[in-house]
Amino acid sequence: MPVVIGVPSETDSGERRLAVVPDVVKKYIGLGAQVVMQSGAGKPAHFHDAAFDGVTFVDSDAEVCAAADIILAVQPPSATRIGRMKTGAVLLGMLQPWFDANRIAKMQKKNITSFALELLPRITRSQSMDALSSQAAVSGYECALIAADHSPKFFPMLTYAAGTIRPAKVLVIGAGVAGLQAIATARRIGAMVEAYDVRPDTREQVESLGAKFVDTGVSAAGQGGYARELTDEEKALQTEKLAKAVAQCDALITTAAIPGRAAPTIITADMVARMKPGAVVVDMAADTGGNVEGTVKGDKVWINDVLVIGPTHIPSRMPVHASEMYAKNLFNFISPFIKDGELTLDWDDEVMAGCCLTHEGELRHAGVKTALGL
Amino acid sequence: MPVVIGVPSETDSGERRLAVVPDVVKKYIGLGAQVVMQSGAGKPAHFHDAAFDGVTFVDSDAEVCAAADIILAVQPPSATRIGRMKTGAVLLGMLQPWFDANRIAKMQKKNITSFALELLPRITRSQSMDALSSQAAVSGYECALIAADHSPKFFPMLTYAAGTIRPAKVLVIGAGVAGLQAIATARRIGAMVEAYDVRPDTREQVESLGAKFVDTGVSAAGQGGYARELTDEEKALQTEKLAKAVAQCDALITTAAIPGRAAPTIITADMVARMKPGAVVVDMAADTGGNVEGTVKGDKVWINDVLVIGPTHIPSRMPVHASEMYAKNLFNFISPFIKDGELTLDWDDEVMAGCCLTHEGELRHAGVKTALGL
Repeated sequence: MPVVIGVPSETDSGERRLAVVPDVVKKYIGLGAQVVMQSGAGKPAHFHDAAFDGVTFVDSDAEVCAAADIILAVQPPSATRIGRMKTGAVLLGMLQPWFDANRIAKMQKKNITSFALELLPRITRSQSMDALSSQAAVSGYECALIAADHSPKFFPMLTYAAGTIRPAKVLVIGAGVAGLQAIATARRIGAMVEAYDVRPDTREQVESLGAKFVDTGVSAAGQGGYARELTDEEKALQTEKLAKAVAQCDALITTAAIPGRAAPTIITADMVARMKPGAVVVDMAADTGGNVEGTVKGDKVWINDVLVIGPTHIPSRMPVHASEMYAKNLFNFISPFIKDGELTLDWDDEVMAGCCLTHEGELRHAGVKTALGL
Repeated sequence: MPVVIGVPSETDSGERRLAVVPDVVKKYIGLGAQVVMQSGAGKPAHFHDAAFDGVTFVDSDAEVCAAADIILAVQPPSATRIGRMKTGAVLLGMLQPWFDANRIAKMQKKNITSFALELLPRITRSQSMDALSSQAAVSGYECALIAADHSPKFFPMLTYAAGTIRPAKVLVIGAGVAGLQAIATARRIGAMVEAYDVRPDTREQVESLGAKFVDTGVSAAGQGGYARELTDEEKALQTEKLAKAVAQCDALITTAAIPGRAAPTIITADMVARMKPGAVVVDMAADTGGNVEGTVKGDKVWINDVLVIGPTHIPSRMPVHASEMYAKNLFNFISPFIKDGELTLDWDDEVMAGCCLTHEGELRHAGVKTALGL
């Protein structure tokens, strides 16, 4: 009996991505697996059933779960879905392992072997499986577009018959994957971009994209590569330098999200109050509390004459390519363990083992255990 | 007594532009004029009263009209405003001269000397006054951003750890100022762009922006530079070639608006039906009937799995720079006639005279007369 891969519809409202795309399904089938999908699962991502060759379509989540040895998903499963899954089945997805001890307990009870992509050990070999990175790239691009679309100014320089429009100034906070993509996109559109990150070693990457690094004159780099605690004086200096850059920009994009933790507040209400009339703020971290004081998750609010946007489900704004990237990440993770239609997990594989949340009734991940106080 | 320039608030809902910006007001004052503005008029464009030096602020439209020898506006005046204006005052704006005989009659009765920027004779000297062009540039840029923001795909090529995303295909219909700006913007963001215009001589401009010209194999170029009527066979060929390009694109931007006339339907329901799932259509001509069958003015509608967007008030999406450009256009038009604080119109000036809608109780513009059947 070949291994059955199941793909149910995503049920989280606002989630439009899917854990497979037609090309990736082809590859699973090429490995000898069977693929069972819930009919219409790909529709929110514009992948219609007819686009998937060789897939068995069923009508309900329950039927997918009843058939599947491996469930591929984007969002974490509901209690109902966990209940429906086969005992001992494998689950792969962005399982938000840090937030819901109850869900983990349910998966343990059902003997689910779950892999939370957020837990992926970040080594060179695992880059092609890194869903946090691929989805962050999508988010960075989208947030730059949101900023440009909401700005009352042109981003690019524009010369027209009656004069020249100067390019807009965009400030990006956080130079991780999302921040770098936001920088690259804002630059492409034509803005002058500045960027800031607490890690001074990001300066080079920022500058390689044609952006200017905001130098606060303060480095948190400490001994042994660890960040050190800043003195109050240093903190004040840092805040003031940053506030100045914020006050001068036309659009601010904040990207400082920390997986498993609430987003840090970086832009204070006072900094927002000093921004230009018509400035736009896109707070990419709105989902986890926001980097900007005053952000309303899932909404746009005016603070004085500054528009603060707190988008949620950002990768779902671009479901075709976000799904494609995510589907490939999942495939790269699980496919080495599927041969001739059979799944054989290898617990000596550090990437696979390190990504495991639950297995054989146990919560396997030490970091999650500690975080949840278990 | 110096000439008084009045700027009332725009009252059309959805209109956020203003006919002056602080820098341009300075120039009017430099010419010896007085400027009277309605308090808060610049707020929707993010120009607060405090940003305007040397301006007298009054509370109401009535007070602006009572004081002003010249009214600068974006949208046409209401009957109420015409009633409030000084007899014989000058009015400058986008007066939509083709649509409202009643409004023109009211301006005649009040002896208003009105200049409709849409009527500007298009000669080299008048380019710096060309509000249709400057605002079309804004619209083209905005529509490309709307398309990118709504597309479920990346516009640019993207290489990431698990593969490469191919750039999106954008098709732009109409290669006027708006279309060219849409092409340039979509290219900047990273899309592959094709463009089509019935005028084959636009090919060079399209190609100079790095886009491909859709060759339908049919030219409407006739004798003496005039377009000739196509045969039915030629029309069918043209439609089929265009439909093919439409079917292949990820985003379609249509820009075929004709001042003073309803927009031509270029993209039929059948063409939309053949588009890819997840394709996006931005119909820039939604305000005047749309280039796409099925466009709903001011709304987004799904036709099968294609999102058709019919934005209105497009330049108001970018009110800071749209106002700046528009304000400069108006200034370039009227400033040659203001010296030492005095307004002296010169009816021998072909640009000024050609732009005149009403003067001394007469409807002066022959084209408008004919169009309105007067």
